[in-house]
Amino acid sequence: MISAAPLAGIGELHPGDDLGSAVVAALAGQPVPTTITSDHVLVVAHKAVSKVEGRFRSLADVTPGPDARALAIAQGKDPRLVEIIFEESRGIVRAANGVIITETHHGFICANAGVDASNVRGDDVVLLLPRDPDASARALRARLGELTGAYPAVVITDSFGRAWRTGQCDVAIGVAGLRPLEDWRGASDSYGRELHATVIAVADQLAAVADLARRKDSQEPVVLVSGAERHVVSEDGPGVAPLIRAREHDLFR
Amino acid sequence: MISAAPLAGIGELHPGDDLGSAVVAALAGQPVPTTITSDHVLVVAHKAVSKVEGRFRSLADVTPGPDARALAIAQGKDPRLVEIIFEESRGIVRAANGVIITETHHGFICANAGVDASNVRGDDVVLLLPRDPDASARALRARLGELTGAYPAVVITDSFGRAWRTGQCDVAIGVAGLRPLEDWRGASDSYGRELHATVIAVADQLAAVADLARRKDSQEPVVLVSGAERHVVSEDGPGVAPLIRAREHDLFR
Repeated sequence: MISAAPLAGIGELHPGDDLGSAVVAALAGQPVPTTITSDHVLVVAHKAVSKVEGRFRSLADVTPGPDARALAIAQGKDPRLVEIIFEESRGIVRAANGVIITETHHGFICANAGVDASNVRGDDVVLLLPRDPDASARALRARLGELTGAYPAVVITDSFGRAWRTGQCDVAIGVAGLRPLEDWRGASDSYGRELHATVIAVADQLAAVADLARRKDSQEPVVLVSGAERHVVSEDGPGVAPLIRAREHDLFR
Repeated sequence: MISAAPLAGIGELHPGDDLGSAVVAALAGQPVPTTITSDHVLVVAHKAVSKVEGRFRSLADVTPGPDARALAIAQGKDPRLVEIIFEESRGIVRAANGVIITETHHGFICANAGVDASNVRGDDVVLLLPRDPDASARALRARLGELTGAYPAVVITDSFGRAWRTGQCDVAIGVAGLRPLEDWRGASDSYGRELHATVIAVADQLAAVADLARRKDSQEPVVLVSGAERHVVSEDGPGVAPLIRAREHDLFR
């Protein structure tokens, strides 16, 4: 049994805020006050993390270069936004139909390098992904440990589009205290036959269940997931890296 | 709050079995007997559906043609399996590194046209995707209605790999009684700003939560999801089609 409960009452977050304290206060303020344990997974929308880390950019501060201006015209975007997308990216994967897909410096392949203008105050301010989402996840996990004595797994998420399928799914962009993949290769299925190609993207499926548990307009960036304890580990673990397909094994870039 | 509980006790399924009756019997036999309602979503691994629909193929019955033999050599696969993959596909999207990605007749882009040898009895027998998974979902929903008076949403799933990310996530391949996408375009975020690009793949995230709720070796193909009632509708609805990106909007095939 898996369950996912969004935490009401996190409230507006600002650069320098203590996200761990905000989570602990929200837990205490739930209709049924909740105690976090080291068996839980805390799934956090990256916007909450990016805000406390001050990852804002004002379009007014950006002078787009010629490449950004050209791509902005071709794809119908603000050239200042395209310049920021360039700054956040290792390279462009595709640009067509008004969509710019890049590889971020973290290695994520997503639209607009994850730069986001929704759920951000101010008309010309955009929010970037955390600089090092694994480090952000580890820091939040450590802070929760200081405050509560419990070390839940932490998954930081963003909503990504997919090749071939419409709609976005939330995926993990930062992980601490969790095995991000469950590898059944070499194990047996229920008939004792070897499962050849089964590696489950646990961290991404945790991101998905958290997203299902809230509404996009609810301002509930933190979701507490129970029932996933077999994936939770005591050390911080490898972070999100195992979820990123190496370029040489990727047939679609 | 979203919760997902796998149903124990479905047992082995055979061609012609009544999956609806098996689900109702399993619900009654849970440690806490469960009553299904029209607010629930029943998420069903396609293998359960394919088995009752008799979608088995024996490799011994297949004579591979020259194209299948050539691709089998190039990708290190059984040529009879490759012939079946061809039969199940509209076309090959990529073949490299021992992986064959095709577009199935349904329009899904996945490895091996969804043809699967794990969790199937018999060494040279493989299991195909249901011929029309939306029809399978509608039929199961109708049968559950006959047996219980309740019409839960039904989502039929498979585990697909993804471009750019490692690990598999379960996704919807058949849908009845559910809005498969939640479209927030034109709606406002929590600051009253329009959300431009937010369409959530609800059916795929439901597939993911169901997969998280069980183990790959548990033989629990059916998972009951609660808390997703805002996505459930009384009519059967559009099925899985809205989740398939049209070729002309797809940058990655």
